[in-house]
Amino acid sequence: MTSSNRSRPERAQWLRSSNDITQQFLAFGGRPDVVSLAGGLPAAELYPIEAVKQATRRALERHGSAALEYGAVEGFPPLRDLIAARISAETGGTFTAANVLLTTGSMQALDLLGKALIDPGDLIVAQAPTYLGALDAWRPRAPSYRKLDWQSPDRTLLAKAKFAYAVPNYSNPTGVLVSQERRAALLDAVRDAGTWLVEDDPYLTMQLDGPPGPSILAHAAGRSRAAYDGPVIYLGTVSKSLVPGLRVGWAVGDPEMIRTLTLTKQATDLSSSMFAQSVAFELMRAGVDQEHSASIVPVYRERRDALCSEATRHLKDWFEWDVPSGGMFVWMRSRDGAIDTDELYKFAVEEKVAFVPSSVFDFDGKDRTAMRVNFTRSSPEVIGEGVRRLGRAIEAYVSSRPQLKGRV
Amino acid sequence: MTSSNRSRPERAQWLRSSNDITQQFLAFGGRPDVVSLAGGLPAAELYPIEAVKQATRRALERHGSAALEYGAVEGFPPLRDLIAARISAETGGTFTAANVLLTTGSMQALDLLGKALIDPGDLIVAQAPTYLGALDAWRPRAPSYRKLDWQSPDRTLLAKAKFAYAVPNYSNPTGVLVSQERRAALLDAVRDAGTWLVEDDPYLTMQLDGPPGPSILAHAAGRSRAAYDGPVIYLGTVSKSLVPGLRVGWAVGDPEMIRTLTLTKQATDLSSSMFAQSVAFELMRAGVDQEHSASIVPVYRERRDALCSEATRHLKDWFEWDVPSGGMFVWMRSRDGAIDTDELYKFAVEEKVAFVPSSVFDFDGKDRTAMRVNFTRSSPEVIGEGVRRLGRAIEAYVSSRPQLKGRV
Repeated sequence: MTSSNRSRPERAQWLRSSNDITQQFLAFGGRPDVVSLAGGLPAAELYPIEAVKQATRRALERHGSAALEYGAVEGFPPLRDLIAARISAETGGTFTAANVLLTTGSMQALDLLGKALIDPGDLIVAQAPTYLGALDAWRPRAPSYRKLDWQSPDRTLLAKAKFAYAVPNYSNPTGVLVSQERRAALLDAVRDAGTWLVEDDPYLTMQLDGPPGPSILAHAAGRSRAAYDGPVIYLGTVSKSLVPGLRVGWAVGDPEMIRTLTLTKQATDLSSSMFAQSVAFELMRAGVDQEHSASIVPVYRERRDALCSEATRHLKDWFEWDVPSGGMFVWMRSRDGAIDTDELYKFAVEEKVAFVPSSVFDFDGKDRTAMRVNFTRSSPEVIGEGVRRLGRAIEAYVSSRPQLKGRV
Repeated sequence: MTSSNRSRPERAQWLRSSNDITQQFLAFGGRPDVVSLAGGLPAAELYPIEAVKQATRRALERHGSAALEYGAVEGFPPLRDLIAARISAETGGTFTAANVLLTTGSMQALDLLGKALIDPGDLIVAQAPTYLGALDAWRPRAPSYRKLDWQSPDRTLLAKAKFAYAVPNYSNPTGVLVSQERRAALLDAVRDAGTWLVEDDPYLTMQLDGPPGPSILAHAAGRSRAAYDGPVIYLGTVSKSLVPGLRVGWAVGDPEMIRTLTLTKQATDLSSSMFAQSVAFELMRAGVDQEHSASIVPVYRERRDALCSEATRHLKDWFEWDVPSGGMFVWMRSRDGAIDTDELYKFAVEEKVAFVPSSVFDFDGKDRTAMRVNFTRSSPEVIGEGVRRLGRAIEAYVSSRPQLKGRV
């Protein structure tokens, strides 16, 4: 604070205990001389600009002033119908517009879920490590966390939780694809426990090695012809299948929960942009998202492979990883936890390369044994350069730690 | 809740104590057989659809993928620059992009301010009656309220508050234009008290009887050539000057506060739609918002006059009002508080006309002596029909209350 406002009121408690590490990453990663493997951004050069232009023209011609209104809090009606129809087709269940709330990206759905369900101290059972944006979104509600055990979900723990949180498809940050058996087991446990399960699925369309199989929502919906009212609240988005700048996402769930989230959204921003939603509708109606996804997957596959092969050359003495079958990230774990990735980051800054250290994905901020490395934003050449810089950063880090030098 | 989810976790406390009265109004007011004088919506038939179409084409041609990215949390950079330049010109002060955060309508700025500043029980000193959306936005943070006394702002009270909240231009719901003397006095008090002042200015461009004079922000900025760092946080929007469906608004304030709100916004939705912001930028750069505002003001003036003259014919025995010099609403007070407007609403429903009763604008939900009547959404003919229905609703209400009948 500057001297002029030193006497002004304090910020809310959650902000006083928070930090601006993400903003620091963003600022550093955005510098032109830096190779950023930190963000979770699609490749901007692939955005379907011409298709967006045409879709906007169609949206304004077909929907006129309806595309420019505040509109319904729940979102642009034709897009809610389209999402419901697609989810019905994908899951075999029965979904209508009453099951769908459109949001400002699926990130806003996380914010709304926190507002609608969490009072201070309330429990969330979350897949760990956890998507940083979810931790950020829920911080103002001051929840407590326990780790979701995929191997054997703890019913007693789940019964105490307001909801469980999982990213079964190519999780952020780990890239893990959760097996169908584990999905079914988690759903069983959630049902027994009588709680909600938030299934966050932003990476669905980034299937680099083939389809991931049914969502947990599909397990929950079954083949029922009755309207869906199960415990899974499913979050989707066009941020990866089209473009992030439309900020169009959706929550699909039990109609009563959708009404609660709608009431919460009304108190948050009245509605998301009908204009952006009407454009997303015209794009999806024409199948542009599916075509676009199909066209970008080979590009991302090449980038993933470039990252992994270059990393095998330069990082494998100190890090290990599984090659992800989709998504945007490789999760690199320090061998035997020997390297502190918060410390390594400082050396990476010197080498002008950015990644995201594991501490920010940890409820407690303590895990410093891994790093998230993105492969979607840059060309294979730039990724290769980034990995070589990372290799040099590791060398410098290890040289500064005499106890590590003898390990290789 | 249906039986299938009766056992699921309870909603957060603020929702349990909340109600869905606004949604009920919206649903009822949206019925085709109902004349709605309830909403706060612009006239959809006046939306500049063709200009939006052209601006979108320009935005995608000029800004390309930058219009389709997540982009900076703070918003589309050229639009932040444009807002800063306009505010500088309007106020005579010095504002840069560091003073500007773009939001999903100015409604989101209210949500962010609540998150960033309010812990449970913290005090807000607000103009009363208060904009319903602000009360909604802050409910999840559980503040306490005290009424802002424009006549003689209470410094001791303000010193205890996280912020003061005011809508000096054509307030919602009352339509009141606050005098320059009172603006200056409030600013003095806020400065002495060392707190923040949120100046919400959505109706600025709806000047039906000439310009409203300087904003409180202008008083605070003075003619200083130093970058603004004063106590006023000013909220603006294109919802009334262009279209609401872009959901483009802004908060202008001290750079440190803008950084706090940015951190809060990042945790809320990562960013608003760059697409919508780039279109708003192209519209504003071309001056479309100023042209559009100039063209709709005469239409709204005619509608306001139609409402007031028809009301003089049918409502004046029971209600009194000041003709507002701008904005969207006439605030009708029951003479001697004889009529309970919550009760009257039930008779209005029978007559198929909607207004908003005063109780929803009251911190305590207790004031039942007035109603907010909108004049922007419908034609003079439809407004006239609505007022006649309201007159019949009052007759029916009064007939059902023998103690009132003798009063006329």
